[in-house]
Amino acid sequence: MLAQIRSRAALTSSVSLRVGIGDDCALLRPRPREELAVTTDLSIAGRHFRLDWHPPESAGHRALARGLSDLAAMGARPVAAFLSLGLPRELTVASGRRRAWVERFFDGLLALAAIHQLPLAGGDLSESPIAVADIVLAGALPRGKALLRSGARPGHLLYVTGALGGAAAALARLAGRLNPAKARSGRAQPPRIPKKLEALLAPHLYPRPRIAQGLWLVRHGTASAAIDLSDGLSTDLAHLCEESGVAAEIDAALLPVHPAATLAQALHGGEDYELLFAAPPTARPPGKIAGVPLTQIGRILAARSGKPAVALLTPQGPQPLEPRGWEHFS
Amino acid sequence: MLAQIRSRAALTSSVSLRVGIGDDCALLRPRPREELAVTTDLSIAGRHFRLDWHPPESAGHRALARGLSDLAAMGARPVAAFLSLGLPRELTVASGRRRAWVERFFDGLLALAAIHQLPLAGGDLSESPIAVADIVLAGALPRGKALLRSGARPGHLLYVTGALGGAAAALARLAGRLNPAKARSGRAQPPRIPKKLEALLAPHLYPRPRIAQGLWLVRHGTASAAIDLSDGLSTDLAHLCEESGVAAEIDAALLPVHPAATLAQALHGGEDYELLFAAPPTARPPGKIAGVPLTQIGRILAARSGKPAVALLTPQGPQPLEPRGWEHFS
Repeated sequence: MLAQIRSRAALTSSVSLRVGIGDDCALLRPRPREELAVTTDLSIAGRHFRLDWHPPESAGHRALARGLSDLAAMGARPVAAFLSLGLPRELTVASGRRRAWVERFFDGLLALAAIHQLPLAGGDLSESPIAVADIVLAGALPRGKALLRSGARPGHLLYVTGALGGAAAALARLAGRLNPAKARSGRAQPPRIPKKLEALLAPHLYPRPRIAQGLWLVRHGTASAAIDLSDGLSTDLAHLCEESGVAAEIDAALLPVHPAATLAQALHGGEDYELLFAAPPTARPPGKIAGVPLTQIGRILAARSGKPAVALLTPQGPQPLEPRGWEHFS
Repeated sequence: MLAQIRSRAALTSSVSLRVGIGDDCALLRPRPREELAVTTDLSIAGRHFRLDWHPPESAGHRALARGLSDLAAMGARPVAAFLSLGLPRELTVASGRRRAWVERFFDGLLALAAIHQLPLAGGDLSESPIAVADIVLAGALPRGKALLRSGARPGHLLYVTGALGGAAAALARLAGRLNPAKARSGRAQPPRIPKKLEALLAPHLYPRPRIAQGLWLVRHGTASAAIDLSDGLSTDLAHLCEESGVAAEIDAALLPVHPAATLAQALHGGEDYELLFAAPPTARPPGKIAGVPLTQIGRILAARSGKPAVALLTPQGPQPLEPRGWEHFS
C-alpha cells in the first residue's frame, strides 16, 4: 500500500521538498526570505463526505480542496501535501472489475494536486472503522506578506471572488436525487452521477480553490485581510470581523449569487471556497483576477458594542446578519 | 471549544511561529540555514488507543509522542504542533464532577508539549462517530544535517537508546488486568490505574521520545542513518536496511532487554520509541546521551540477494530475523 502510494505521489519535483515518503519526516526548505504557511483539515465519512453521495474521486478532490483553500486565503504557494488516511478494509480492496475506493479517492486527490504542481510528501495510513482523511498542506510566502484575517480597518471595502451559493445549491440537488432509505441500508456503494448532472453538481463535488487569486493579492499588496468561504459568507465574515476587531455591512443587491442558488444559499451556504477580502478604497482591484470575477459586496465599519458585527443591506433596510453557516462543535 | 483550546495552546512563545490558531494557516519561519521536518501520525480509537484501556491523558500523550519520536529520528528540534481531532460528542462534555474526556486528553498532550517547549499552532476539530487524532509536527534542523534512514553502510555499527520491549510488556500487563466482556459492553469509561501499577505501565502509557538524543546525534555528526522504534526492532531495522540498501546482524546477547520484557518483546514489540542508529566504527559514541544509556547491538552488512536482510546472532548460531512488528495494512 505504502509503496503504491509512494509511486503515485512522485508527481512532480519541488525545489522546496527534499525528502518525501519513506523516511521518518519530510524535509521542507523554504527559499530565502520565505516563510511557510501550514494548515490541517480533517474530513470524516458521514460528516464531510458520504460514501453513498460522493464519488470517491470527489471525496479525494474535496479533502485536498479544503486545505488548498486555506493556503489561498493566506496567499501562499502550495509546496507539499501530507495525507493521514484511516480506512475500513473494504475500501482498500478491488472487487471484480470494480477498482478499490481508495484508488479512485487518490485519482481525485492527485488530479487536483497536479493542477497545482503539488507533491504528496508524506502521511500516515491506518485501518479504521470509518473513513477519515486529514490533509496537511504547507505553502510558501514572502516573509511578512501573508493575508491575515486581522488587518481589516473601518472604511476598507469588501470583495469576493466568483459566485456564491453554488456549492449549497448543488448539495441540495445531490441530496434530493437520493433515496434516503436505500442510502441508509447496507453497504454504501459509490453513486453514479449522470453526465448531464456533472456540471450542475461540480460546484459541490469539485470546488476550485482560488490559489492564483490569493497569489495575485499578495503580489499586488491589495488586501488588508482575507479569509476563504468554507463555512458560508455569514459565518466567515463574522470570523474576519472578530479577528480584525471591526464590523461590516454587505449589500444584498451586490452579491454575486450563483445562477442556481438562492440568496440564503449565497449568504449561509458553505464550501464555495471563494475568497473574501478587505482592501483600502485606494486599492481598486480589477474586475477579474486570473479569469475569475471579483465583486465588491460591502464595506468594513467600526465595531459598535452591543450591535451585531455584520449587517445586510436590503430594499427593506438594514438587517442583522447572524452567522448561520457551518460551525464545528458550536 | 476553539477559544478554549486556543487559550490552552498559548504555551510558550516560539521564534519560529508567527501566527497560530485563529487564522487560516499557521506561519512558520525557519531560521537562516535551517530546514523543516514535517511528520503526521494518525491515532484512531480502538486501534492506536482504547477508551477503556487508556486514561485520556495517556491517549493525548501517546498521540503527541508518536510524532515527537519521528522528529527525534531525524534529529529535529520541535517547532510547532497541529492537531486534527474528531470526537463523538459524549467525549467533549463533562458529566457531574467528571471532567470531559477531551479536557484530560489535552492535559496529557499539552504536558508533553510543555516538556519540549512546543506550541500547539493549529488544527481542526470535528464531530466524529469515533475518536480520531491526527498529530502533525514541524521540527527545525540545520540544512542537510537530518538523520535519514538511507545512509547506513556495510561495516557501520548499530546502536539503540534505552531499553527494548518495555512498552510491549506494559501493554500485555494492561490488557491482562481488564475484563474483556466488560470492556466490550456499553459505553467505555476511562480506566482507573492503581498507583502501584503506574510505574510498571509507564513505558506504554507515557513513552518518552528521544528528542535530546536525536539533537545530540545531529550536533556531533555521529549517525549515518537513524529510525525510531515505533513498529518494533525487527520491523524498523528492516526499514532502515531497505532504505540504505544494506543487510544487518544483531546479537541477542547484546540487546538491552527491558527488565520486565521477554526477548521476543524486545525484538518485535512496538512503541518503545527508542532510537536505532548506525554509525561508522570511528564514531565511538558515549555510553549515555543526555542520561539515557546507549548500547551497541550489531552491525551493518552488505546486502546479499536472496538472503534475509536481518540476522539475529544467538548461542545456537545466526537465525533470520523476520519483521514481525506492527505494519499498517500489511
